[in-house]
Amino acid sequence: MILGVDIGGTTIKLGAVDERAGRVVAELAFVTPQIGAQGVAQEIAVHARKLHSNYPDLHTAGVGVPGAMNRDRSLVRYPPNLHGWKEEPLRQYLQEALPEFNRIEVDNDAKVAALAEAKLGAGKGLSHFLLVTLGTGVGGAIYATLPPKEGGGQGVVDSIFRGASGGAGEFGHTTIDFNGPKCNCGSYGCIEAYLGQHYLSDRTKAKLLKNPTLSSPLRAEENELTPKLIFDAMTAGDAFARSVFVEAGTLLGAAFASAANLLDMHVFIIGGGVAEAGPVLFDAALESLRARVLANLRPVVEIRKAQFGNQAGMIGAAMLVAG
Amino acid sequence: MILGVDIGGTTIKLGAVDERAGRVVAELAFVTPQIGAQGVAQEIAVHARKLHSNYPDLHTAGVGVPGAMNRDRSLVRYPPNLHGWKEEPLRQYLQEALPEFNRIEVDNDAKVAALAEAKLGAGKGLSHFLLVTLGTGVGGAIYATLPPKEGGGQGVVDSIFRGASGGAGEFGHTTIDFNGPKCNCGSYGCIEAYLGQHYLSDRTKAKLLKNPTLSSPLRAEENELTPKLIFDAMTAGDAFARSVFVEAGTLLGAAFASAANLLDMHVFIIGGGVAEAGPVLFDAALESLRARVLANLRPVVEIRKAQFGNQAGMIGAAMLVAG
Repeated sequence: MILGVDIGGTTIKLGAVDERAGRVVAELAFVTPQIGAQGVAQEIAVHARKLHSNYPDLHTAGVGVPGAMNRDRSLVRYPPNLHGWKEEPLRQYLQEALPEFNRIEVDNDAKVAALAEAKLGAGKGLSHFLLVTLGTGVGGAIYATLPPKEGGGQGVVDSIFRGASGGAGEFGHTTIDFNGPKCNCGSYGCIEAYLGQHYLSDRTKAKLLKNPTLSSPLRAEENELTPKLIFDAMTAGDAFARSVFVEAGTLLGAAFASAANLLDMHVFIIGGGVAEAGPVLFDAALESLRARVLANLRPVVEIRKAQFGNQAGMIGAAMLVAG
Repeated sequence: MILGVDIGGTTIKLGAVDERAGRVVAELAFVTPQIGAQGVAQEIAVHARKLHSNYPDLHTAGVGVPGAMNRDRSLVRYPPNLHGWKEEPLRQYLQEALPEFNRIEVDNDAKVAALAEAKLGAGKGLSHFLLVTLGTGVGGAIYATLPPKEGGGQGVVDSIFRGASGGAGEFGHTTIDFNGPKCNCGSYGCIEAYLGQHYLSDRTKAKLLKNPTLSSPLRAEENELTPKLIFDAMTAGDAFARSVFVEAGTLLGAAFASAANLLDMHVFIIGGGVAEAGPVLFDAALESLRARVLANLRPVVEIRKAQFGNQAGMIGAAMLVAG
């Protein structure tokens, strides 16, 4: 049994994770306090002890955090959704707050989710895949194992491609149109600027405003559109809502094609809330990917849905210290 | 002393390479015969023996080839510029044709060039870089070493990121505009569809035709434009010719930004004929890259010129078997 902690911008979840089954046996959650990294570590310790009182064999912990890590994963760097965090030695803070734990590891949340999918989920048995999370932002992680004779097989944590300073995987900032819409990151036409939740909602609203004769139940809610509302309208048969996800999938497929060509990636695993749009999004993405990727990759590219839902963070975090 | 062989679409070059100095001591070249992979291997053997008669300590050979390899580098797959080649066991053909050689290794030409730059050139001392070759096409190779404690340091050959089936590095087919110009690969808006030699020439010609009042010495040669002619016009002071390379650099920087974000790459090394456009191209690319890349990478991204010119193929190939 391992303590898996998922630090999110709004909620922090702690789970007692059965590492073999990839299952959360017991779970606690609390609202992310705006008290800096050290305070958050202490709050996590308080809740960890509650879990520990029921599961006394919890002695190791893995933690997922929504921000970039340095290469040895000792520092979290300026996580955009954790206010006031700069470069924070989160692992050290947690070790100080939880001295009774033997081992604590911290990693980026998308990378942690990739570990869960690699070990127990949609990526099981694969040597390479790109995990993409479609949520508020568009995150990613590159899972890449070397064959054992090329030095691979040292353990699942080393199978995430980290790049020169540990921040690799920012798939959301792959440009699909250098003249495209402005992205929060300062660039233009990043895939996140089309598929991030707010961008997707805003684009949909803009289309409704631009086409006043277009009939859609979404018009009644155009001021508070969410991907969930668009999804519900699609499920109820609205053609316009469906077109939103077809377009989203088509654009996503174009970004996948660039990554497939550059990295020789065959499998793309999609997680996060927007992934719930299901086959409409996935089919459009696969069609677009196949139309755009280099000919030799066309027969082998695949898009899969992430297997772990909102427990991916806890389960994946636990994988950081799994045997 | 190692035999380095550079198989190109038009010419095959063989060099006796001093591996320590990274220098070609003697060199032979012949026109690439259109006789299939086995015939080419036999022709290479004929020329290798000529070199061997003067350099009797040539006992190992490295070979660069303009096509994708499988993961163990035993097969070359459908190299686009070698007519009639399918999946070819080139290493085996060469071993059969040159039984007196102890060891022969084959790899993709851009990957081989990356090895040369990593060991002796513009990438010396770096753990990660992306090598891009701007020629007829736009090729690439991802150089990525793991820190020794993460299983790295096994040798320079293993430091090329190869992906799921060995074909990683196809940077030329990174899309910068999903609605952009059609690329030979079948997709749209690939960076190769802007910067490949023929595309660059054709775009330049199209601009001249579209702006009949634009004055440029290139107009006299508009039917046989080459990057070299555009470069010469720029050197002679032509503002229009200069704008061609500024635009090329700006677009290249946009594609670099996607790769920098996804791979956490800090250094981009540019080789190939079009790289001779020099500072105008490089400065525009760096400005564009800095404007587009994620904020934390802005201070660290760099663009360098490849150090090895038209001998990169031979020298890099020799690195495949260097001690």
